[in-house]
Parts: sequence; C-alpha cells; structure tokens
Amino acid sequence: MSEWIAAAQDGAILWLWQMEGGAHPLEQHSASADSPESLAETAAALMPGVGGPIVACGLPQAGFRKVPCEPLDAAPLDLASSPRRVAAIPGLAQENPAHVTQGAETKMAGFLALNPKFDGVLCLPGTETAWAHVSAGEVVSFQTFATADLARDSAARLGLRAEAWDEPAFLETLSEVQARPERLAGRIASLRAEGLLAGLSENVARARLWGALVGAEMAATRPYWLGQPVAVIGEGALAAIYVSAVTAQGAAPVQAKGQAMLLKGLAEARARLG
Amino acid sequence: MSEWIAAAQDGAILWLWQMEGGAHPLEQHSASADSPESLAETAAALMPGVGGPIVACGLPQAGFRKVPCEPLDAAPLDLASSPRRVAAIPGLAQENPAHVTQGAETKMAGFLALNPKFDGVLCLPGTETAWAHVSAGEVVSFQTFATADLARDSAARLGLRAEAWDEPAFLETLSEVQARPERLAGRIASLRAEGLLAGLSENVARARLWGALVGAEMAATRPYWLGQPVAVIGEGALAAIYVSAVTAQGAAPVQAKGQAMLLKGLAEARARLG
Repeated sequence: MSEWIAAAQDGAILWLWQMEGGAHPLEQHSASADSPESLAETAAALMPGVGGPIVACGLPQAGFRKVPCEPLDAAPLDLASSPRRVAAIPGLAQENPAHVTQGAETKMAGFLALNPKFDGVLCLPGTETAWAHVSAGEVVSFQTFATADLARDSAARLGLRAEAWDEPAFLETLSEVQARPERLAGRIASLRAEGLLAGLSENVARARLWGALVGAEMAATRPYWLGQPVAVIGEGALAAIYVSAVTAQGAAPVQAKGQAMLLKGLAEARARLG
Repeated sequence: MSEWIAAAQDGAILWLWQMEGGAHPLEQHSASADSPESLAETAAALMPGVGGPIVACGLPQAGFRKVPCEPLDAAPLDLASSPRRVAAIPGLAQENPAHVTQGAETKMAGFLALNPKFDGVLCLPGTETAWAHVSAGEVVSFQTFATADLARDSAARLGLRAEAWDEPAFLETLSEVQARPERLAGRIASLRAEGLLAGLSENVARARLWGALVGAEMAATRPYWLGQPVAVIGEGALAAIYVSAVTAQGAAPVQAKGQAMLLKGLAEARARLG
C-alpha cells in the first residue's frame, strides 16, 4: 500500500506518524500546528520526501457530529487539498449535557474495527477522560471529565513531584469519595493539611488526590459502567489508574493501547478516502 | 497607644501595615519574606523609623493549635526578639479530616472580639476557603477548600479572561452540582464543549465554573451551614459569591470585611503581648 501520514492534535501537541499501509507507524514526531495548511507544512519539514495524504483527528476545524452515530462514518472531511491533501475525522458532540470528543472518537473507531461485536462501555483516559456507551457499533451517549487536568493543577499546588504511587491509599480514597462525592473538594484540601501535620509522603498524597478525583468520576459514570462490559483504552500509568478503579467495582475490564487504537482508527479513515 | 506593625502571610505575598494603637492601619505595604528575621528586615526597609513589635499571622513557623480551642488564646508566639520583636499567631489544626488555617484563625479572632456572643458558622473565602463551626467562643471544627485555586486553574485552561458574571447561570449550576456533586469534573468538562458547540459567553462560563466548584463545596459543608447562623468574612467579588451561595440555601448571612477582621485579630494579639 502507498505511504501516508497520520496526525493527532492533543491539546497543544500535534503528533505525526509516518505510515506505510495499515496501522503500523515507521516514525513518530511531535510538533505544534494550528491550521490544516500549517499541518501540511509541518509534515513536509519533519518528513521530507514522504508523500500521500495526511489523515488527522483532534482538529477543531473538522467540526463535530451529533451522537448517536458511529464514531467514524463515511469518509473523513477534506480540509485542504494543496500543497497536500489533509483529511480529518470530526469529533463527536452531545448537547445535553454538552460534551465533545477531539480524538477519542478515533480511538473508539479503531477499537470497534478490531472488536466489531463489542457492546458496552469504553473508558478513554486522556487530557480529558471520555466514557462512551457503545451499542451495535454506534456511540449512544458519552461524557467527558477534566480529571487529569484537575489532578495536574492540584499536584502542582501541593508541590507533588513524585510519580510514585501507593495503591492501597488510592483505593481507600477512591472508595470514600465514590460513596460520598460531596467530599471531593474537602478531601483535596485535606492533603495539604496532612502534609503539614503528619508528613504525608508524596506517593500517598498523589494516590489520594487521584483517588478523590477518579472516585467522583466513578460516582458520576455509574449509570455507564454498572453491569456493563468495560474496555479501558489508554496508555501507561493513566490507563492503569482507570483499570484499577473499574476493577474495584468488581468488573474485569478489557484493555487496549490508546496509540494503537488511534492509529487503527486513522487507518480506517485512510481506507475510506476517495 | 504605641506604634506597632501588623503582618499577614497569604500564599507568596506578605502584607504589612503600619499601626498606631487599635486596629486601624496608617499605611499598607506588600512584599515577600520567608523567615521571621527577614520579616523584620522587610518591615525596616518599607517603614523606616516605625518602632514597636511586629505581630503576624499566616507564618508556618508559628505552628498550629488543635481544635477545639479559641482562635486566639493567650499571647502570640515569640519567633524573634532581635533586631525587633516578632510575635505570631499559630494556625489552627484539625486531624480528622486534616485541615489547617494560616491566617483565617486571626480573622475569626477579630470577628469574635467584635461579636463575642456569635454562635454558628463562619465562612472565610480566601486562597483557601475555611468553614468553621464556632460555639461559646471556641472553634469546634473546621474545613478548608481549595476552591479559588481550582477556579483560577480551570479558568486559565478554558481561556476565560472576563471578570464579568452571570448570576442566574451561577445559581443554576450551583444548585445542579450541589444536588449531584459527583458531576463536578464532568460539569467543568462540559463548559469547554458548550463553548465549542454553543458559543458560551465568557461571563456565563465563568459563573458556571464557580457555580460547579462552590456547589460541590456547599454539598460538602452542608453539616456546617444547615440551620445555623452564617457569617461570611471576606472581600469583594469572592465574598459576594459565597454570600450568594449561602443566601441560595434560604439563609441570610451576616457579612464582615476580611481585612478589618484580620487587623482586629492582630490588634487583639498585640494587646496580649507581655
């Protein structure tokens, strides 16, 4: 198959992959770009000599499609044709409550291409975590949570630099705040006091902070995951936190790599280009 | 009465006031300082020729006193005697759940000096908001919340610059999240989606953000304010938000200025110096 370039905007970072048929990257790059035209220029600068179209997700210029719908329907949207074709997968939108995806829909499309009979709930941890109810290949409804952003802000304020972790502390606070989500804001404030009064270690503080935030998120998403098969689609420590939280509900979540699902979704879109 | 200097550490800022008896300042200065000795040097540099002791609050070096206790008991703690006497009011500490005050106890002392028969709940908005249950002149228990910090972080991420406000939007989101506090992180994520999908105005977004955060706080502090007289001790727009939130519960809060109560509390401590 011919060569092409996969791209994903994730917050301020633009990820680019040199592809050669299928969903397996030859090279990965990161940069910043703010328009489909500058995306083409960035790709040319980073991967000179690599031809073919750019297929992207996470770009606000691609707009949104309202759920219920398939995460990837028909061909991606052409945003530019010169100097190079740039096609982008629109995000998903829900009006009430208002939520959007910018990239998570592409991971969902990749997962459903590999697991076409999956019926249940997808949990996609990321800059924003998305929870989607999927049935018969369609996203029925979804919600997003600013949990990772809130955790990063609070960790910076608490002076937590450690990436270390205390799983029992995480599970304890998860359970506490999930049962009493009104305690969320107070539980986070307590961490500073416990540090001053009791010399709380950074790994316990970090685990309790995540426990409080994910505990509130599990309480809010209970109508999603309760009694449903759950697949967690993500990478590394962040995905592990959600696997642990879902497992604590007595469920046994399926796991899939976020980048692999993203590239599979982009490859599906690539295959639909006219 | 003789001259003295009032000081309060609030996060990275050190406030200093030139005093001449009583609780009314002649001059106000701000600076930064990180030890009782450098506090004395800063005072000498900003107010040359002003003598007398420095009476301070918010200094971690002063330690903490465990509740239940009066917000100001006996004399403040001597931290330095040379080149000038520096005495500081210890913060309050609670072990379970862990919370500390660093300055709020001094405002409480000022308020109780002026309202010695007050029995109820003090709400002190600030860098951290403190809620204290006060009975017979003692702080029985208290909680703190990082609401203002979280609001500032989220507003920056949402690109909200406006200081404008939409009171109906605030009250609507306050009520929604107070009833379902587990929705906090989802409600904040929704603001970004509403901005993208519906062109949500900055003043509505800012009011909804505060509504979500203060709604979670009102849910957490319900055992405090329910059926109790409430006094809101603070300044400006931040105090107005809490007055509005307490009023929305059907209560009629008393209001007092934060700086006036702080200086009254420091003057009370000054009067107890040996």
